[in-house]
Amino acid sequence: MTQITKRGAGRPRKALLDRDRIGVVALELVDASGDFTLPELARRLGVQTASLYHHVDGRAGVIELLREQVSGAMDPTTLDDEPWDVALARFFRSYRQVFAAHPRVVPLLTTATIRSASVIHAYDRMVARLEEAGIPPEKAMRILTALDNFVIGSALDLAAPDVMWEVPEGVVVPALSAALAAQPVNRKRADEAFEEGLGRLLASVAAEFGLVGAAATSEASEASEAS
Amino acid sequence: MTQITKRGAGRPRKALLDRDRIGVVALELVDASGDFTLPELARRLGVQTASLYHHVDGRAGVIELLREQVSGAMDPTTLDDEPWDVALARFFRSYRQVFAAHPRVVPLLTTATIRSASVIHAYDRMVARLEEAGIPPEKAMRILTALDNFVIGSALDLAAPDVMWEVPEGVVVPALSAALAAQPVNRKRADEAFEEGLGRLLASVAAEFGLVGAAATSEASEASEAS
Repeated sequence: MTQITKRGAGRPRKALLDRDRIGVVALELVDASGDFTLPELARRLGVQTASLYHHVDGRAGVIELLREQVSGAMDPTTLDDEPWDVALARFFRSYRQVFAAHPRVVPLLTTATIRSASVIHAYDRMVARLEEAGIPPEKAMRILTALDNFVIGSALDLAAPDVMWEVPEGVVVPALSAALAAQPVNRKRADEAFEEGLGRLLASVAAEFGLVGAAATSEASEASEAS
Repeated sequence: MTQITKRGAGRPRKALLDRDRIGVVALELVDASGDFTLPELARRLGVQTASLYHHVDGRAGVIELLREQVSGAMDPTTLDDEPWDVALARFFRSYRQVFAAHPRVVPLLTTATIRSASVIHAYDRMVARLEEAGIPPEKAMRILTALDNFVIGSALDLAAPDVMWEVPEGVVVPALSAALAAQPVNRKRADEAFEEGLGRLLASVAAEFGLVGAAATSEASEASEAS
């Protein structure tokens, strides 16, 4: 009873606790500290840990809320664009942007089974686009996972500091020093590396399956000019 | 004075605290919790936080120790193998294995400037191999970063659970379901996706610069049989 008074009877606690709010606060926690615990999350939400279980299935459930928070910021409608490689390139560009804003969430998401319906639907659409392009189902997941891995790594690279390599005094590395001097700075560096790999992967798939596939490459300069 | 007694005068504290030991304990902390703080690290090492500063330059210094711990498990001598694409493929295979054992360290390393001399030397060797193969310096870093991003993402994928996609009840995703049914399980799934992307990226670079570049692809089956 004392507890009710402490909580402040006038505040509508119940209404505040929903899956979206749990996801938002969990994301803040992970962005700041690289992880979360259920008691910590409950404390931040101003509820008892047990109350969380009315909304999510424990830690794994919170990780799926994190996945929904992050992927909710992507635009899945680009997956309907034509042709297939433009659709995938556009989607992967927004995918990279969104994950780059939350680098510390990445290992939590990549080490947990994907169960979120909206994310499962996005993968289904990606596989369908690859298959429409003539890629057999047994190769589709492998190609998609390779692309996915590249995009995740590129998102982490986009979150990298402006100076990513700093040659310490007394260390003589002529090839690296010349290559570093030749590369653009800041964000342009990461953008170019991303388009380099994305273009190569999509063009390689297109070439193997006898598709045109020039679109992703030609759009790269457009995307990098816009940024 | 009391403090000296508390610490236990007979224990050789100084000898125990070196950069390697700080790195080992920091890695344990990050593996377990996704992060570290200097006070927490000092407590685990049984020293005062101030003592850490005799060995490392604060948080950034500890992150470089984490980088050295992780990269110390890779074999840089493979970077001298012939031809260039076999050298890179072999190095990236060990790179992926090592990072997959420490997925939670990944975002700490990718969001901090690389200053570790041994890691800087490895990048220098990679750039040198690309340039020997005829790739100009202004393209070398971009290609290397694209490969690096792919390998980092693939390391996280190797650390993924056996079931990475689980279609929830009531969710109808025919293309994804067929593709999931057609893919191998467990580690073989991640290995195949890695070799798929690595082979495509290296072959694409080889093709652009008029190199042979069949070695990485032919070795993929060897590597996947051995695992």
